[in-house]
Amino acid sequence: MKTTQTATQVIPILGDPVAQVATPRLWNEVFHARGQDAVCVPIDLPSAGLDPFLSWVREARNVPGFLTTVPHKASLALACDELSATARLLGVVNTVRLGEGGALIGEMFDGHGMLDAIEQSGATLAGARLVICGAGAAGGAIALEAANRHAEEIALIDADPERASALAEKVRSAARLRVTTEMPDGADILVNASPAGSPGAAPPPFVEALIAGARCVADALTDPEETALLKAARLHGIPAVAGKEMAACQAERMRAFLGLEQRN
Amino acid sequence: MKTTQTATQVIPILGDPVAQVATPRLWNEVFHARGQDAVCVPIDLPSAGLDPFLSWVREARNVPGFLTTVPHKASLALACDELSATARLLGVVNTVRLGEGGALIGEMFDGHGMLDAIEQSGATLAGARLVICGAGAAGGAIALEAANRHAEEIALIDADPERASALAEKVRSAARLRVTTEMPDGADILVNASPAGSPGAAPPPFVEALIAGARCVADALTDPEETALLKAARLHGIPAVAGKEMAACQAERMRAFLGLEQRN
Repeated sequence: MKTTQTATQVIPILGDPVAQVATPRLWNEVFHARGQDAVCVPIDLPSAGLDPFLSWVREARNVPGFLTTVPHKASLALACDELSATARLLGVVNTVRLGEGGALIGEMFDGHGMLDAIEQSGATLAGARLVICGAGAAGGAIALEAANRHAEEIALIDADPERASALAEKVRSAARLRVTTEMPDGADILVNASPAGSPGAAPPPFVEALIAGARCVADALTDPEETALLKAARLHGIPAVAGKEMAACQAERMRAFLGLEQRN
Repeated sequence: MKTTQTATQVIPILGDPVAQVATPRLWNEVFHARGQDAVCVPIDLPSAGLDPFLSWVREARNVPGFLTTVPHKASLALACDELSATARLLGVVNTVRLGEGGALIGEMFDGHGMLDAIEQSGATLAGARLVICGAGAAGGAIALEAANRHAEEIALIDADPERASALAEKVRSAARLRVTTEMPDGADILVNASPAGSPGAAPPPFVEALIAGARCVADALTDPEETALLKAARLHGIPAVAGKEMAACQAERMRAFLGLEQRN
């Protein structure tokens, strides 16, 4: 028996449901292309299964951590032993790493993913004015990470103004930048982090003039791949960042966090 | 969100260590060739992780069951809610299915796998006289399944005669066939279910005349693929069944038990 061999690294992704999640397929394509001995597996888990999952996964030697999606992001943040500033402030995680002694270390990578993708498109965050549509956890993570990258001003817009105000207050408490909840006349970077623009929903509330004056337009939606917002940006010759680019950047951050990027 | 979609079926295999186990690769090749949405993943789990694993796996909706290897076969047999007659008698399982209400239903498939492979080679079990070298769980499972298939006589041979006697007593208690613990002068089917013949070990104690007079010779070892025993059988023109053929037959039984053979 070759006990010196290393077992395949297994990265579960928890959801309820989970069948719609593209992450296992996308990650496994990356692992396969690299010849990396790792596999991402979906786990369709109701909330009652979270506690035993955590007890079990702390014991497993070849699970470096796990990912999560709806509806477990907040419950898992509560279960973590350590949280990043963003995860603590927003009360959600999408990635949990197993640290020394089985410590659960939680992070929320939506902001990193979106802003990495925006920077890859050529836009600069330092000094930028952003408009973020959608005051949920993704919008919050993007706002906080934009502050980390020295953005100057953020407008948080939501169909529910109270939700936008509540998030704005949180972001102000953590970050030194100007945060408003009103749509400005002009901005450098427009980000949709809301369901607006998905099939059957209204488009995000960015008027033509705002789009035409921006330096970069980004959409977190992955369905459709090319949203009306992205089409409008491209029509004006403005760099457009699609949800799948954000997802790819985010996946790289997650894998690095889980220690899966140094291999090979 | 497409909630009607079915999540990938995930089949963990628990071991400590687990890196040496070929099952995930072999099963995933089968799933891939069939276009079946299922994945077998190794879990390197110390005994302390078994209880939480069981609590968790009862909640996960896309885990139809799991496999296990050393050193968890006996602990998991104790944890099962239902056991096959063979698993109960031998006190070990290598496959556990999740039944109604999360019931753990355990089975030990070594016997089925070996005897399916022997029958595929053309040998008949009904009325046959077998010699089984190795009085561990595999030898016991093979003996019990040979009795189910109406073998007439079994000789159980082990380097430790007390171990052979203890197993012989168990088999006699469950099966109506003649069980001895002495090497006979002649037999129809010779089976090695012991480590004898693996690198660094002595070969199984089957003399040339016994091999020459047999109708089928089988070896459970998978390393080396072609053992000295199998080579000797082939030299005499006798059908030789290799460990990998047993493993393939066993895998099919396991997948059927887990509901993975009806798909596609």
